[in-house]
Amino acid sequence: MDKLLFGVAYYDEYMPYDRLDEDIKMMKAANINVVRIAESTWSSVEPQNGEFDFKHIDRVIDAMEKAGISVIVGTPTYAIPTWLVAECPDVLAVTKNGQGIYGARQNMDITNPTYLFYAERVIRKIMERVSKKKCVIGYQLDNETKHYDTAGTNVQHLFIKYLKNKFHDINDLNDEFGLAYWSNKINSWEDFPNVLGTINGSLGAEFEKFQRVLVNKFLSWQADIINEYKREDQFVTQNFDFEWRGYSYGVQPRVNHFEASKCLTIAGVDIYHPTQDYLTGTEISFGGDMTRSLKNDNYLVLETEAQGFENWVPYDGQLRLQAFSHIASGANSVMYWHWHSIHNSFETYWKGLLSHDLKENPTYNEAKIIGDEFKSFGDKLVNLKKKNDVAILISNEALTAIEWFSMTLDFKYNDVVRWVYDELYKMNVGCDFIGPDSEDIEKYKLIVIPALYSAPEELLNKLNSYVKNGGNLVVTFKSAFTNEYVKVSHNDQPNIINECLGVTYNQFTKPNKVSLKGHTFNISEEENTVEHWMELLTATTAETVAYYDHPNWGKYSAITKNHYGEGIATYIGCFTNKAILKEVLIGVLKEVNLFGEEQKYNFPIIIKSGYNSENEKIVYYFNYSYEKQSIKYIHNDGIELTKNKEVKKGEEVILNPWDLIIVQEIN
Amino acid sequence: MDKLLFGVAYYDEYMPYDRLDEDIKMMKAANINVVRIAESTWSSVEPQNGEFDFKHIDRVIDAMEKAGISVIVGTPTYAIPTWLVAECPDVLAVTKNGQGIYGARQNMDITNPTYLFYAERVIRKIMERVSKKKCVIGYQLDNETKHYDTAGTNVQHLFIKYLKNKFHDINDLNDEFGLAYWSNKINSWEDFPNVLGTINGSLGAEFEKFQRVLVNKFLSWQADIINEYKREDQFVTQNFDFEWRGYSYGVQPRVNHFEASKCLTIAGVDIYHPTQDYLTGTEISFGGDMTRSLKNDNYLVLETEAQGFENWVPYDGQLRLQAFSHIASGANSVMYWHWHSIHNSFETYWKGLLSHDLKENPTYNEAKIIGDEFKSFGDKLVNLKKKNDVAILISNEALTAIEWFSMTLDFKYNDVVRWVYDELYKMNVGCDFIGPDSEDIEKYKLIVIPALYSAPEELLNKLNSYVKNGGNLVVTFKSAFTNEYVKVSHNDQPNIINECLGVTYNQFTKPNKVSLKGHTFNISEEENTVEHWMELLTATTAETVAYYDHPNWGKYSAITKNHYGEGIATYIGCFTNKAILKEVLIGVLKEVNLFGEEQKYNFPIIIKSGYNSENEKIVYYFNYSYEKQSIKYIHNDGIELTKNKEVKKGEEVILNPWDLIIVQEIN
Amino acid sequence: MDKLLFGVAYYDEYMPYDRLDEDIKMMKAANINVVRIAESTWSSVEPQNGEFDFKHIDRVIDAMEKAGISVIVGTPTYAIPTWLVAECPDVLAVTKNGQGIYGARQNMDITNPTYLFYAERVIRKIMERVSKKKCVIGYQLDNETKHYDTAGTNVQHLFIKYLKNKFHDINDLNDEFGLAYWSNKINSWEDFPNVLGTINGSLGAEFEKFQRVLVNKFLSWQADIINEYKREDQFVTQNFDFEWRGYSYGVQPRVNHFEASKCLTIAGVDIYHPTQDYLTGTEISFGGDMTRSLKNDNYLVLETEAQGFENWVPYDGQLRLQAFSHIASGANSVMYWHWHSIHNSFETYWKGLLSHDLKENPTYNEAKIIGDEFKSFGDKLVNLKKKNDVAILISNEALTAIEWFSMTLDFKYNDVVRWVYDELYKMNVGCDFIGPDSEDIEKYKLIVIPALYSAPEELLNKLNSYVKNGGNLVVTFKSAFTNEYVKVSHNDQPNIINECLGVTYNQFTKPNKVSLKGHTFNISEEENTVEHWMELLTATTAETVAYYDHPNWGKYSAITKNHYGEGIATYIGCFTNKAILKEVLIGVLKEVNLFGEEQKYNFPIIIKSGYNSENEKIVYYFNYSYEKQSIKYIHNDGIELTKNKEVKKGEEVILNPWDLIIVQEIN
Repeated sequence: MDKLLFGVAYYDEYMPYDRLDEDIKMMKAANINVVRIAESTWSSVEPQNGEFDFKHIDRVIDAMEKAGISVIVGTPTYAIPTWLVAECPDVLAVTKNGQGIYGARQNMDITNPTYLFYAERVIRKIMERVSKKKCVIGYQLDNETKHYDTAGTNVQHLFIKYLKNKFHDINDLNDEFGLAYWSNKINSWEDFPNVLGTINGSLGAEFEKFQRVLVNKFLSWQADIINEYKREDQFVTQNFDFEWRGYSYGVQPRVNHFEASKCLTIAGVDIYHPTQDYLTGTEISFGGDMTRSLKNDNYLVLETEAQGFENWVPYDGQLRLQAFSHIASGANSVMYWHWHSIHNSFETYWKGLLSHDLKENPTYNEAKIIGDEFKSFGDKLVNLKKKNDVAILISNEALTAIEWFSMTLDFKYNDVVRWVYDELYKMNVGCDFIGPDSEDIEKYKLIVIPALYSAPEELLNKLNSYVKNGGNLVVTFKSAFTNEYVKVSHNDQPNIINECLGVTYNQFTKPNKVSLKGHTFNISEEENTVEHWMELLTATTAETVAYYDHPNWGKYSAITKNHYGEGIATYIGCFTNKAILKEVLIGVLKEVNLFGEEQKYNFPIIIKSGYNSENEKIVYYFNYSYEKQSIKYIHNDGIELTKNKEVKKGEEVILNPWDLIIVQEIN
Repeated sequence: MDKLLFGVAYYDEYMPYDRLDEDIKMMKAANINVVRIAESTWSSVEPQNGEFDFKHIDRVIDAMEKAGISVIVGTPTYAIPTWLVAECPDVLAVTKNGQGIYGARQNMDITNPTYLFYAERVIRKIMERVSKKKCVIGYQLDNETKHYDTAGTNVQHLFIKYLKNKFHDINDLNDEFGLAYWSNKINSWEDFPNVLGTINGSLGAEFEKFQRVLVNKFLSWQADIINEYKREDQFVTQNFDFEWRGYSYGVQPRVNHFEASKCLTIAGVDIYHPTQDYLTGTEISFGGDMTRSLKNDNYLVLETEAQGFENWVPYDGQLRLQAFSHIASGANSVMYWHWHSIHNSFETYWKGLLSHDLKENPTYNEAKIIGDEFKSFGDKLVNLKKKNDVAILISNEALTAIEWFSMTLDFKYNDVVRWVYDELYKMNVGCDFIGPDSEDIEKYKLIVIPALYSAPEELLNKLNSYVKNGGNLVVTFKSAFTNEYVKVSHNDQPNIINECLGVTYNQFTKPNKVSLKGHTFNISEEENTVEHWMELLTATTAETVAYYDHPNWGKYSAITKNHYGEGIATYIGCFTNKAILKEVLIGVLKEVNLFGEEQKYNFPIIIKSGYNSENEKIVYYFNYSYEKQSIKYIHNDGIELTKNKEVKKGEEVILNPWDLIIVQEIN
Repeated sequence: MDKLLFGVAYYDEYMPYDRLDEDIKMMKAANINVVRIAESTWSSVEPQNGEFDFKHIDRVIDAMEKAGISVIVGTPTYAIPTWLVAECPDVLAVTKNGQGIYGARQNMDITNPTYLFYAERVIRKIMERVSKKKCVIGYQLDNETKHYDTAGTNVQHLFIKYLKNKFHDINDLNDEFGLAYWSNKINSWEDFPNVLGTINGSLGAEFEKFQRVLVNKFLSWQADIINEYKREDQFVTQNFDFEWRGYSYGVQPRVNHFEASKCLTIAGVDIYHPTQDYLTGTEISFGGDMTRSLKNDNYLVLETEAQGFENWVPYDGQLRLQAFSHIASGANSVMYWHWHSIHNSFETYWKGLLSHDLKENPTYNEAKIIGDEFKSFGDKLVNLKKKNDVAILISNEALTAIEWFSMTLDFKYNDVVRWVYDELYKMNVGCDFIGPDSEDIEKYKLIVIPALYSAPEELLNKLNSYVKNGGNLVVTFKSAFTNEYVKVSHNDQPNIINECLGVTYNQFTKPNKVSLKGHTFNISEEENTVEHWMELLTATTAETVAYYDHPNWGKYSAITKNHYGEGIATYIGCFTNKAILKEVLIGVLKEVNLFGEEQKYNFPIIIKSGYNSENEKIVYYFNYSYEKQSIKYIHNDGIELTKNKEVKKGEEVILNPWDLIIVQEIN
């Protein structure tokens, strides 16, 4: 990428009247240089089966070309037209709730051949139309693609073939999944029951894994079509999203982002987050670190909030703070969903840069400032590269397995992931994410592993070696409890890595009035709490960092640390208050020499950095608060880009509320 | 009506043994002069297809005739017999939950021809039997009729025809409803999808509007049949009910009462309300004002609670206080649901005047006092007429639209309606209700408009003229946001009436720690709160009554007042604490000269008045509390009717707990 | 039984590898002398239709025989194999949620002939294989059998026949059930509607009663098959369970245990209960008293928790305290569910004596202590007989009826049962349970009747006679309100027994800020509360124990006491604080001479006693707390068995936390 992209999703199709010229004028005024179009407009592009209408696409592309604004074309396949369902009702996915009915987006069976046939045709028609246009810089495959819980007879049929491929002998399947329990044994492939009724978490989790594979297949099928048409200089991306808790919260349960991104040339993402009094930047950083890690490269923020829901209207300064936070995480674009607010239907309140009156407003006006800054010094910021010493190991399989056994847990996988991530974020520890199949483990000085409930032996053995060879681990409770088929290990817990951790347990419980003792943590009494889960640890070779404080459990360790080979492996056997976790992490970071000057700053002062295309170090200081902050600049002397002013190491700097500085270091 | 009706619903069919003579004796002892019969007894009247049995109807009518008690005959159509469903299962309504199963009442498809055929036959048979009986004074069509969410293929078929009638060109429909969004465009009428799945609020709300039209059609179809038989002196009514929140709360979502009442000769209603410590009279007044407004005339209370649910057993005095509260709102009847408590089935605990032992009890004994008073001075009270200066404009369309966009709101339409109504009630401001099609707007000095989310341009233009010509408005947030098809206006907000209001906005949010500043309200700090919703107002020609008190929103107005032509238009841009609303309303009432002596009294002292058939002014003072109240009588000299004693203007009067006085003024 | 059974459920089928020898070694080390096998393993025993595989059964029985461990064989019928559903999908029960899908246990229609055909075949095959084995001491029919809400057309067909048998004339049914209401009359048997839709509680409750009859039929059908094979010395049992609220809470709604146990030779049960800080022993005592009462004999605890859910890991001493609590209630066995924790599927966290690592652990180690004690002095404890003076009358019909009318109640039947039971338990009052058909009423000095909502006249007349002849009653609110068909009585309430109680009412309500006055209870102000329900009582011949304290209800009695013939009948008209109930019960116990020395002790000191086979009195003192307790031993001199030491009446005894003493009195 040769410049930062600053843009919006733009739907000429949704406009209440013809405003194309007016919109482009307002975009140019804001230095918007890219729009994303066409995604979800199938019923406009192909109003009847085989009848195509490129009016909107043509006029937008032509106008953008003239205005010098780039265009990303999305394939329209994630929302199907009414004629398709009227003609072929079985394209609607069958889920545990039965067959869907028309209305919502993302309700089709992504394996249905009829759907695929018509989807392919419309993609090809669009590609023929747009791929040669100069302003078209790339393509988005579908949008927020997931498997939509598709589980009809046809899908289950494919699943049985998939299982046969893994387990040639049905009894291996029975044994591995423990199907003898409650008489669930399948003694002949022909007897395979409806998987939607299963109470067997191994079978259920494997089916969800298979459903994630369907997403990979669907996306690479689309990518193959696109690749037939696309120019070399055009990219292919996807708009990934996250576990949704009213905003982008954590690992996406229905997509394996690492696998799904293989067919892309650049990863893309949408990130929505709390704002106003609740803006912390955590989700921007989390989503950015995740997406940057997919291809170890810069990524596109294809959607983020402008005014969003009713309580997402940004305070003065917040829109700008957010934009640079994306760039500081390695994004090469900031694109709003969307340009204008929609006057009908589901997302009427998911507002764009323009309100329903389509006039200027404070949010649009702040976007103008951002556009201006991107234009004036964006070339210093684009293609920011990072080299982090810390990685967090995440796993879709662990997530799904914990969902299946949630009856015993008061938390979900992503609560543990975020518990860990958030403390690192607040201490300005830059992180990558890696998956269970990562080849890059050795690259990191410290790997943090939250609740890796389900893990293959191979990975666990690799972790032992990693520590032996000088790597460092922080592993939490509920890790390595089962194998990749969610069979609990009958070896000592945690399976295999008890070796590097030097700790084991065979009982666990839910804490009731439990705190920690015997530690050196700098925490208050109210912070000394353990919730939801505790394992009754016995250190074998490890030293105990903290014991449980409780009349019956006081003899058990809660947190341990083990020197193993050249490395150190820390185990946290319980879900502690975040203050305790912070103390544990500080201890580890200090011991492995990762606690530097930046870690002395804490949220709401967030520091991010990286190296630009010229290999110049770029440092960001963000003030995520309503309080004016006076801080000491701790990096090398440089040019503060927003004011284009020199700044010296050690100099006092004032950060206004929701403001930031960006320094290009001078070596 | 020549006298107040005092009565009960009476079901000989439900009696555990023959008590007709005993019941009539007890009714006469309580001066009960009317019973309602036959409603919901189809399976008794027509035990098999085409076999009729009028035993219960005949014997009750004959006995009532002899006893001098009038009879209202209800058609039995709102609960269908088992044979009908066994023979024709498709009479059961198909809703979004699939086809219903037999059991509950109100489960049929009111458009189903089979149902209509049999319903018509049984109605005609009953009419032939009863219409010439002298004691029969009127008919109730069905009961609490609604559309029961009927939405089967046949109903959707009718809906498409209804839409075609409105939108001759399908593209007008697509544009008006914004169906291009998420590929929902319907490019051919044949492609019309199942409306139950729609995520388009314009389409969904229009379907609900169409369902309300079905209710109007059904009732007028029944009225037409009844009218073939009824004598001139017999009335036709319906038992309307309200949004149910464990009691009668607000505007009925599934019926447009204004439209549905057109086929009636007199409006009827049931009103259920909290009692004991929670009795305030608000629902009696609200339901009464609504029902009186339907035909601008007196109305029947066809059902109200006797002992009701477990916590509805009235305290001493409450049953009488309630009865006269109905009359003071313009009711010409008080009828209990029901005479005796039922010994089996769903409403066992919805108790009647008699308990399950069918003997005298404190509630029945209090009914005897009421009956005695109705008899002795009811002729002074009947046909009470009111001329109110204030109207509240309500809208089914606004209600439905807000339901569709409830994801963004922490309240429903009726919360706003009641927020406004309750403050007016507590200040003794008499109100009428008007609908969006009202021809009577000019009649009122002040119109209060809560959350008129969806409004046609014509109405909004009319409101501008109304103010210009000297009318006064109080409009709340979320008004005039969309047109009648729930398309958000792309003009300045609030659409069109921003002219008379002199205010506009294009951003809004959810308040977090927001209060008001710059006002002159007499409120405490705890009362100075804004919840759920705030619009960031900019006054154009209006003056600001209050600003938001908040670090980021302090520059925006919250409440404004605008002199426009001869009138004043007030806008309340946020959901305030009720204490603030009260202050705003007092300000408006004073400015438009509607703040009189009665407004100096407040709940729990409630004052109601009107003019009887002789045009004598009748004034009620109610004490809605457990505290004895000493108050000054502020109306003209008159006769206090309950004690038949003179009372002078300015005299101190004692109101016992849950007691009242009724004064006939002497001019 | 000649010894205490100490055992586990054991599933060779579920083992991750062959551990039979190792398991037996560890069992022997813990003096485990019985295992339960085969239940729920149909898919292992009959992997394909008609192909049998007894591998696991054979090898376990052979190994146990050799090891001297007894075996209870469960029939495998409560979880069906995949081939059965694949071949005959209609074996899955149709409930109000439609037809089930394969996966969970207990999902079949227990009346389906196909299911019964295959179930019978597999039972016979197993019986042929195992019935002659010496170590097999008994059989368990199915497991936790219920009707699984089966309600398909075939079941409803049987229900109509069942009703025809009771009500020869359909109009008797209509009258008794009050079907005229809301037009529900069934005027011809052919018109019988789908009972799943009914809103008639009489019809609905009768259907549930019929469903409970299906359970009786199913179990006695299995018993008949077993009886063809079983040796005289082998027993037949069932594993009953209770209303589940995360643990065994109260009367089982879906089974009439009294009726269902008739086909058994010994009653069996599973009891799960809170532990750790929440262990009280109440559920052990409640479940034990219930199960002992079924056949007035000792019973088997076939399942109880080892480590159970995450918060059921016992504190040191608790497993042992629990074990002896079972025995002290009359159990002849303590069997854990289950030996080893399961490595896959639904109950992964419902842990056995062994954790997933299958090694020794603190819980297993405590089991070893118990096994050792059972072995050394179990012969003194086995076959403990009780003669209680107090019985609690419970009723499935009352439970179901209160469910149907729960809309008016803030509590369920079992809340009232446990409210009463728990206070008696905490005062060490030994209780039996009796059903409405009990022939043993006269045996008891005091019968306590919680919320007997639905009761036949015959029973009520019997209760009048019982009191007249010197029996004593404590009856709570909501008793004798309806007849056995849930028709509310139109006589004075409580129906019929108002005679012995000397009290009546015809109004009731939900209390709001109501307490009691006029009493002599020793309670604090905070304890003086009435919640959920109050009846406005008028004493006829009774004296008032307490009045309501409330401005409007102060004239009504709340609790009354009546001398009637030779007995005393107490009525509690409201749901009081448990402190009030305790005071009422103390008053009654004292008056009828049932308040002895043991009642001066209170929870956490629990005293239980009975007579062993030698008619020696055995007394248990339990300390259900974390506090060391110093108490006076109040029984006759004897031998304390756990320490084998003499103890004298009046001696001070120390009870350690969660510890107990067991004394064999020396007469």
